Amino acid sequence: MSTLTRAPVLKPFTLALIQLGNIGANKAANLKHAREMIQKAVTNHGSNKKPDLVVLPECFNSPYGVTHFPEYAERIGYTPGKPFSPDSSESESVKMLSAAAKENQTWLIGGSIPEKDPQDDKLYNTCTVYNPQGDLVVMHRKVHLFDIDIPGKITFKESETLTGGTTLNSFDTEFARIGLGICYDIRFPELAMIAARRGCQVLVYPGAFNLTTGPLHWELLQRGRGKVLAEASEKEEIVYADIDPKTLEETRRGIPVTTQRRFDVYGDVSKM
Amino acid sequence: MSTLTRAPVLKPFTLALIQLGNIGANKAANLKHAREMIQKAVTNHGSNKKPDLVVLPECFNSPYGVTHFPEYAERIGYTPGKPFSPDSSESESVKMLSAAAKENQTWLIGGSIPEKDPQDDKLYNTCTVYNPQGDLVVMHRKVHLFDIDIPGKITFKESETLTGGTTLNSFDTEFARIGLGICYDIRFPELAMIAARRGCQVLVYPGAFNLTTGPLHWELLQRGRGKVLAEASEKEEIVYADIDPKTLEETRRGIPVTTQRRFDVYGDVSKM
Repeated sequence: MSTLTRAPVLKPFTLALIQLGNIGANKAANLKHAREMIQKAVTNHGSNKKPDLVVLPECFNSPYGVTHFPEYAERIGYTPGKPFSPDSSESESVKMLSAAAKENQTWLIGGSIPEKDPQDDKLYNTCTVYNPQGDLVVMHRKVHLFDIDIPGKITFKESETLTGGTTLNSFDTEFARIGLGICYDIRFPELAMIAARRGCQVLVYPGAFNLTTGPLHWELLQRGRGKVLAEASEKEEIVYADIDPKTLEETRRGIPVTTQRRFDVYGDVSKM
Repeated sequence: MSTLTRAPVLKPFTLALIQLGNIGANKAANLKHAREMIQKAVTNHGSNKKPDLVVLPECFNSPYGVTHFPEYAERIGYTPGKPFSPDSSESESVKMLSAAAKENQTWLIGGSIPEKDPQDDKLYNTCTVYNPQGDLVVMHRKVHLFDIDIPGKITFKESETLTGGTTLNSFDTEFARIGLGICYDIRFPELAMIAARRGCQVLVYPGAFNLTTGPLHWELLQRGRGKVLAEASEKEEIVYADIDPKTLEETRRGIPVTTQRRFDVYGDVSKM
């Protein structure tokens, strides 16, 4: 985690989750479409409030596949704690995301993109986050790579071309501390446990679940972390949710598992 | 965990779970009824195979309530690793369970009973387990006490009269290594994670969930650990399930989260 100071008080906020269709081979077209959808999420919110936070899905600028990652990967050039100007980044995607956050004056979790480390050229599945001024505030590299083999159904080995990240990350907004994971990261409770114990009230996992393991576990994994408030169809769609701090407070007070851990019997994974 | 040797190979086995009704104030009647139900589970199994393992629910010999626990609590006198004869125990419940396991030649997880520690008179919510010869093989004291307060719905504070156990426990049969928890213990992933990493292929949580938090989370918590194969109604009932090692093997091979943990990024809670 990059933030270990006291977490902000959780305040009501509105979340917009963008599920993208129309991701094709043309990266420039993918970026243009994503930018339009961010604007749409912020302007066409109908009866919902203007969203405070907009989220894109995993791998939004590239087809999802191990052979595509090397071709679409971009060098970002961001190093935590060092000054960074998205405008001068080599990454077209980062430039677009920064501009979209700024022009729409919204917090933006930029889904993920294939990323190439400028030092060693290793590839990562990487999420970048922007504040309403367009600053890149944090970067999360998918820690748990999607390597699965269900014979006759789905075989995918992300690690053929990608490397897993080595840090857990969160960021603070004026309404919440938000922990980050990407897709398959949601299957590993350690990531969520550590984020929660470090003060995160919100966890966001941009995803691109498949149609084999999705129906089996996608809803289950979400419900393991909270109540499902809104759900998209399988098509391109923007879903909105108003997040109410009272629900979190009441739930944590009602069934206080967060304070009932028995760290005298087992260790605290957030302290290791 | 009491067992750190190599786990037995998981073999097919049949499980019988007894959901008890008719638990009243008369302990002798409760014990008699539970014994009859164990026999029924083993003999009236219909089209199922004779069960290899029978499980009773939480607090099967006493009404479930903090004021009842002191009155119904029994001194067991078992110390792990020391010779113990159930016949000479002060505990009527332990005598019954041992006899029932022996006369039905089955493994028996004896739900739980209010237990009084012979040394310091502290009270625990305790599960005892018997082999088909009637030997008491392991004892688990509920680690996470059920202390919740959902205003207007349910308020319960088990810790008013009970103390939480301080050890995690499992036992080996000829068909599986089985980890133990009691009811509310299921809400704490550390217990399940540690059991799995120590070789348990099966987890059993005798429970007595209530009708407020039960409908909210009971099925969810089960599904977080596997697929629901059989479910009882809200009445007294025995459910059977044939456990197939192939399903476990295929699932763990298909989505291999057990081997994909990133202990280079976070700690292993089973090693602390």
